[in-house]
Amino acid sequence: MQVIKYLAKESWNSVLTRPIFNVDELEDAVNLVFGEIKRDGDKALFKYTLQYDGVNINKTEVNRADIDASESMLDDELKQALVIAAKNIRTFHEAQFQDSEVIETSEGVRCWRKSTAIEKVGLYVPGGSAPLFSTVLMLGIPAKLAGCGEVVLCTPPGKNGKINPAILYACKLVGIDRVFQVGGIQAIGGMAYGTESIPKVHKIFGPGNQYVTAAKQRANRIGVAIDMPAGPSEVMILADETAEPEFVAADLLSQAEHGADSQVILVTWAEQLIEGVEQELEKQLQALSRRDVAAKALENSKIVLVKSKEEALELSNSYAPEHLIVSVKDEGLLIDGIKNAGSVFLGNYTPESAGDYASGTNHTLPTNGAAKAYSGVSLDSFMKSISFQKISEKGLLNLGPVIEIMAKAEQLDAHSNAVTVRLNKIKLNS
Amino acid sequence: MQVIKYLAKESWNSVLTRPIFNVDELEDAVNLVFGEIKRDGDKALFKYTLQYDGVNINKTEVNRADIDASESMLDDELKQALVIAAKNIRTFHEAQFQDSEVIETSEGVRCWRKSTAIEKVGLYVPGGSAPLFSTVLMLGIPAKLAGCGEVVLCTPPGKNGKINPAILYACKLVGIDRVFQVGGIQAIGGMAYGTESIPKVHKIFGPGNQYVTAAKQRANRIGVAIDMPAGPSEVMILADETAEPEFVAADLLSQAEHGADSQVILVTWAEQLIEGVEQELEKQLQALSRRDVAAKALENSKIVLVKSKEEALELSNSYAPEHLIVSVKDEGLLIDGIKNAGSVFLGNYTPESAGDYASGTNHTLPTNGAAKAYSGVSLDSFMKSISFQKISEKGLLNLGPVIEIMAKAEQLDAHSNAVTVRLNKIKLNS
Repeated sequence: MQVIKYLAKESWNSVLTRPIFNVDELEDAVNLVFGEIKRDGDKALFKYTLQYDGVNINKTEVNRADIDASESMLDDELKQALVIAAKNIRTFHEAQFQDSEVIETSEGVRCWRKSTAIEKVGLYVPGGSAPLFSTVLMLGIPAKLAGCGEVVLCTPPGKNGKINPAILYACKLVGIDRVFQVGGIQAIGGMAYGTESIPKVHKIFGPGNQYVTAAKQRANRIGVAIDMPAGPSEVMILADETAEPEFVAADLLSQAEHGADSQVILVTWAEQLIEGVEQELEKQLQALSRRDVAAKALENSKIVLVKSKEEALELSNSYAPEHLIVSVKDEGLLIDGIKNAGSVFLGNYTPESAGDYASGTNHTLPTNGAAKAYSGVSLDSFMKSISFQKISEKGLLNLGPVIEIMAKAEQLDAHSNAVTVRLNKIKLNS
Repeated sequence: MQVIKYLAKESWNSVLTRPIFNVDELEDAVNLVFGEIKRDGDKALFKYTLQYDGVNINKTEVNRADIDASESMLDDELKQALVIAAKNIRTFHEAQFQDSEVIETSEGVRCWRKSTAIEKVGLYVPGGSAPLFSTVLMLGIPAKLAGCGEVVLCTPPGKNGKINPAILYACKLVGIDRVFQVGGIQAIGGMAYGTESIPKVHKIFGPGNQYVTAAKQRANRIGVAIDMPAGPSEVMILADETAEPEFVAADLLSQAEHGADSQVILVTWAEQLIEGVEQELEKQLQALSRRDVAAKALENSKIVLVKSKEEALELSNSYAPEHLIVSVKDEGLLIDGIKNAGSVFLGNYTPESAGDYASGTNHTLPTNGAAKAYSGVSLDSFMKSISFQKISEKGLLNLGPVIEIMAKAEQLDAHSNAVTVRLNKIKLNS
């Protein structure tokens, strides 16, 4: 890792810039696949599953029997771990339900909000080298808690034409309604348009590579909501002399192993920490199965020495990391100042991987600085809020003239008249 | 209005289809303007303000003195109306703050969420024939309540090179930090990239024509959040025999006057209501200043006679109207069944225009069926939520093995190792 000492504030942006993640150039590929799905439905899904995944399928939906059978194919240890993780995730997300309160904004004018579930949601779980069953928990649990009527999940089939049993078991555990063995652009297009087999959904969630990201953007433009923009994963660690070099290095590596484009940044005002971390990185790296990927990510990563904890905080808010680990004494002083981050991990015994799997918080988080404007996935992500108002005759007598005056000033006569006809009736009746 | 009786469910979608609002074809125009703004900053804003608005400006920001002077240019009656409307809007949005609770998801594992304001937000208020000062209230009040650090507002200058004083007064009333006399694509591009004068913002809010919509989509793709997709405004009215034809007609017209592409739909199971509404429409239309626009919108609008209130509710949820007026006896029975709508107006004395201006609810609402997945603007729209977690040594002793098992099953060794190094230390120390 590159060590940068006392970086001038003007250079923060350029030194900590993320790799460009521009998916505009994939647009033609996405438009082609989307167009065929719109026209040919499932037939197009079969075609592109063969083309991209190398698997010949003649149906998209995974049989209920195969989902049920997954249970007997997993170690008890792993099943038990998923059950515990699911319990924590459920507990944290369940506490996010909010009561709606009726507010009388002025006499006789009552307003309130009601949260309702999004009726049909689509979850995407990437394929690739490892089965990301944890994403099934992170998306499926809040979807079912919210009360979404139809929760469908798409994930690509493996080379053997099967979906990993850990993913299917997680689907069963969470209660996913329907699972489809379709991945990539074609999965997103299938859920965006709907086909003979896959229902059209109102919102699509989940991580994915640049093709999936481009496809989600396209889906968004044709009227389907999406969870958030996606980019490579990243961690920033704020650490002082009380941090353990061994733990810091382990956390940096756990981010670095995600991919060569992972962003890994240590910010410290304790110069003595740096050497220990570097030694630990060297040592721990050798033991990793994904050491090539991690080593590559570290090449682009930075250790930044700053003057003070205040400067570290300002740098962190300016960067807006997806994951922020805070390993300092008196962390309370820093917590209040954290303005932009996806998820924060406090103290020496809270590794980022806890949030990835089992602490209960959601691991679907804003990357690439999006934490300046976006939250991570939560129960709210699967719901929307409807506002209600009811005005009494007395309320309209009071407030009506205000509406009439404003509507007329905006040159919207009919808006004013909708009040006037009512006021006339009230006056006539009284 | 076209009257449709007992429409088969299969035809709902086709009969109630909205006008296509595809802004893809405007992309080239948007890309051109955005590219120049990125390169030339304010100079590009001057150029396009001259080209599109016909006004030659040499600075973008409105002087504080001009904002202050607006107060003396408005009638006391209108100023007083704005003050009352602002109070109601503030009261309703202020009640939307939520307490964050610490959840112990399992022993020694504490998780919580903290809402923080988006630091820089940009509000867009369209120009055109009428000064839409109500939008300044609807966006500015929650932005300031949320605590956004910098709230900037763009609105195009009028033909006389000035911004309407009612808009400036609303900015003053609400406490908008900076106002810029820039509109259209160039306003959105200016806030998305930032220029010498306009700050780059993290999220852009507000209505606009198709060019503004296309520009907001582009801004979204380059990493700026936006409030929601936009389309023509719409109302659906569910009414039974207790509805007043005069009021129903007035509400239909108040939507129709927005534009020729406004969507106006009456759904009733009381056939006797229809004739009265038609007569009232005819009568009230003649008195409107915008009768040509309203008449045009009515041509594409529908009165739908359904068999029952249950069918009406199902139709309404399927359409997901921006505004839903419910004028029926026993409205409580319907309220519980409302799943998809932007804002709901209950009873004979709650005109939709109340929500547009002064009841307190927000008038920035999802159109074009987006209410199936999106909420209207609220306090939350100006904030985002950060999750936190802190695990004790004991907590990690319990939960650590779960994380190790799951991480290894996902083939992420370093994720597992970040737990293992800590567990080893805890065991060594105990």
